[in-house]
Amino acid sequence: MLELGRQALASQPFSALVGARLVRFAPEGTELRIPVADALKQQHGFVHGGVLSYAADNALTFAGGAVLGTSVVTAEYKINYVRPAIGQEIIARAVALQAGKTQAACRCDVFVVNEGKELLCAIAQGTIARLSAAPSAE
Amino acid sequence: MLELGRQALASQPFSALVGARLVRFAPEGTELRIPVADALKQQHGFVHGGVLSYAADNALTFAGGAVLGTSVVTAEYKINYVRPAIGQEIIARAVALQAGKTQAACRCDVFVVNEGKELLCAIAQGTIARLSAAPSAE
Amino acid sequence: MLELGRQALASQPFSALVGARLVRFAPEGTELRIPVADALKQQHGFVHGGVLSYAADNALTFAGGAVLGTSVVTAEYKINYVRPAIGQEIIARAVALQAGKTQAACRCDVFVVNEGKELLCAIAQGTIARLSAAPSAE
Amino acid sequence: MLELGRQALASQPFSALVGARLVRFAPEGTELRIPVADALKQQHGFVHGGVLSYAADNALTFAGGAVLGTSVVTAEYKINYVRPAIGQEIIARAVALQAGKTQAACRCDVFVVNEGKELLCAIAQGTIARLSAAPSAE
Repeated sequence: MLELGRQALASQPFSALVGARLVRFAPEGTELRIPVADALKQQHGFVHGGVLSYAADNALTFAGGAVLGTSVVTAEYKINYVRPAIGQEIIARAVALQAGKTQAACRCDVFVVNEGKELLCAIAQGTIARLSAAPSAE
Repeated sequence: MLELGRQALASQPFSALVGARLVRFAPEGTELRIPVADALKQQHGFVHGGVLSYAADNALTFAGGAVLGTSVVTAEYKINYVRPAIGQEIIARAVALQAGKTQAACRCDVFVVNEGKELLCAIAQGTIARLSAAPSAE
Repeated sequence: MLELGRQALASQPFSALVGARLVRFAPEGTELRIPVADALKQQHGFVHGGVLSYAADNALTFAGGAVLGTSVVTAEYKINYVRPAIGQEIIARAVALQAGKTQAACRCDVFVVNEGKELLCAIAQGTIARLSAAPSAE
Repeated sequence: MLELGRQALASQPFSALVGARLVRFAPEGTELRIPVADALKQQHGFVHGGVLSYAADNALTFAGGAVLGTSVVTAEYKINYVRPAIGQEIIARAVALQAGKTQAACRCDVFVVNEGKELLCAIAQGTIARLSAAPSAE
């Protein structure tokens, strides 16, 4: 299953541009990691919020896909940035809390790893939908 | 004022990687544009949601900055993807609806331009905070 | 159509408890009004956030129902409180920005009327789903 | 501390109208309970979404207050309804995941108790702010 998820991620040019790796892909939880490159930063040297959003969005999608068992997209989500992301790696961990036939409600914690220590830098929550049932695909 | 905004955007390596341009930066509204390159897509050929999120997030930040008049960050936001983003350019337009001394509540519409026609592909809403008052900077 | 909406609202005991009235119900926009009674306040004398949330949630539902043309529920939404709600009446105005077959993305502005003047006190955004396609009904 | 929280809740007329009780109020977590009365329902006999929103909003506020240690308000939040709320009691459990000097990012799970069994019916996430730093109080 992890191999399938990695193929899906590898088929996304933007995920390759960002440098995301899928580390875990299971109904119990999904984990996405992004090594912090200079190109991912904003003007203060922190990882850009857009990268944290990308990480949360994609981790939520995989978390939904792990329980919906099919081609899925993020329908909507919300993110709170809670700490400047300063460090060497971004880790996004997501899980589906409730799943129906076509949608799943998921949550995600985004951490930055700084000198080996994981620090929470964003939290997210959203809806993942089967592609056939997505608002953006009707 | 637009020139100041462009310098801020130019100082963000991730914005350069994505290829964002600031087209308007005023209290009445802010506009960010991103030409659609293949590297910004996902596996179905649509613009990746992470790019739309980046566009909304950054346009919200500038919309808040235009009324708060100082160094600001996005504290939190929410986005709904409402249509597959297929086209040649992404346009994110944001405006502050209410501003206090340290925070502003802003909204953003994200369009994809397809053969000259603007189509709504995402809507967002969030809080922009002065850097000194940001949850992520305390 | 307004009459149908009013019957739906009248069939909700909680809406009767809060004292909500449907003033407009059309694809172009929906308006819900709540006279401010003391029972709707919090400890500082402002209208309780829960009342503003109720107003936004229900106005969003009607806005979605006006375009989806069937039995609908709010699947999710987000609200920002932007001003203390001090006044004589709450007005929630919502509209669907994009609608598919089973879902609609909607926005809502919540105002408080104080001595005849409308003041924006909350903004919301959410997803309305046909009951048959709702995450909570699967 | 629980006694202080209960006094705060008791001073909110709307919380009395809804019938909310504060069961736990600590930095490690807050719990709010609402017995399901007919007046809290919508037309299908489920607990009205507005009641679940009220519960989430207020539980988030108390969760933030438990760590910020002062007079607080909900600045914004987002909620996903994931199951029809059919049962005898609503339980909202919230906790602050990250707190600064003036704001806290919190999460909430809302359950409905049906014949002794707790079922997740909504999930929420939001920002709690000290009253002095609230967007709605500037």
